[in-house]
Amino acid sequence: MTEELLLTNFRKHIAITDAEFDMVLKKLIPKKIKRKQFFLHEDQVAKDVAFVISGCLRSYSIDENGFEHILQFAPSEWWMTDMYSFVSQQPGNLNIDALEDTEVLLLSRKNQLELFDHCPPLERYFRILTEKSLVSTRQRLINNLSLTALQRYQNFCTIYPTLIHTLAQKQIAAFIGVTPQFLSKLKNER
Amino acid sequence: MTEELLLTNFRKHIAITDAEFDMVLKKLIPKKIKRKQFFLHEDQVAKDVAFVISGCLRSYSIDENGFEHILQFAPSEWWMTDMYSFVSQQPGNLNIDALEDTEVLLLSRKNQLELFDHCPPLERYFRILTEKSLVSTRQRLINNLSLTALQRYQNFCTIYPTLIHTLAQKQIAAFIGVTPQFLSKLKNER
Repeated sequence: MTEELLLTNFRKHIAITDAEFDMVLKKLIPKKIKRKQFFLHEDQVAKDVAFVISGCLRSYSIDENGFEHILQFAPSEWWMTDMYSFVSQQPGNLNIDALEDTEVLLLSRKNQLELFDHCPPLERYFRILTEKSLVSTRQRLINNLSLTALQRYQNFCTIYPTLIHTLAQKQIAAFIGVTPQFLSKLKNER
Repeated sequence: MTEELLLTNFRKHIAITDAEFDMVLKKLIPKKIKRKQFFLHEDQVAKDVAFVISGCLRSYSIDENGFEHILQFAPSEWWMTDMYSFVSQQPGNLNIDALEDTEVLLLSRKNQLELFDHCPPLERYFRILTEKSLVSTRQRLINNLSLTALQRYQNFCTIYPTLIHTLAQKQIAAFIGVTPQFLSKLKNER
């Protein structure tokens, strides 16, 4: 079941044989993260990238004044890590926790790089996912620079349709960069 | 000379044979873009990604109020395109122009994808560059959410050390997201 979810996800983007998929599967480690528990703390090295089977992860940074700024949510079928730390294998500056009980498959950077040598479709898969991720992060950056809070909220609804009704309003507000009170006002004005 | 700049850049990141490099070279088209001329207009499809040999490109969006928001600068040895449009081959929302007379090598998405099949090191090269680009874009997003204008200016100086003295102040201000007057005040207060 778990394996099928991942295989289906792979085959949305690339052609991969059963033998190649088995090679990848052998390197994945299943893990459960309870609600409010951490997958990663800032100043730790992100050894792994996590594929979310069920539940939802959240990555965020905390600024000098103690305010949380949410970078990303990862519901089912999303990958999540601190990319800076994962790529450089240096301590990062993101916290990643679970918003609900979450099941993930972990792939270490070391195993990922080894698999890139022995299973080229996996490198293609991550090349494509990284391109998509870059596109959406750049778009969010442009949005934060130029859109109104209402337009940013509408974008959030487009990117994360499954999260609009399940996420706490304060989480959505922190992602958009407004207070929960302001978000509530926005939604009432629509 | 031009070819060596690219080969040196490749070999910073990947192992590539001379034969493989020749395969890539055959797909590149040299182009000159004069100062203030456009490489791409919003609503066009970004067929190509450009490797900057000399000069400097700039990508930006224009919001509903006519304000420019700069996404990226590409001095020598940087790649530049509208990633959304390049990856999807749909019309994009970025403008890309030359801040000075600029020489580039163009690689079309079609040729890039063909080369990924026949020259796997090139796919690895772009996988690595896209990872780095994602890391820096996410960091900039976090910075815009959480850092002061002064800290954002200091980050700009770290990312683009060669541009601090050559770029117009209004360009740097637009990148950081402040007015040129505010940037000048910031620099005087340091």
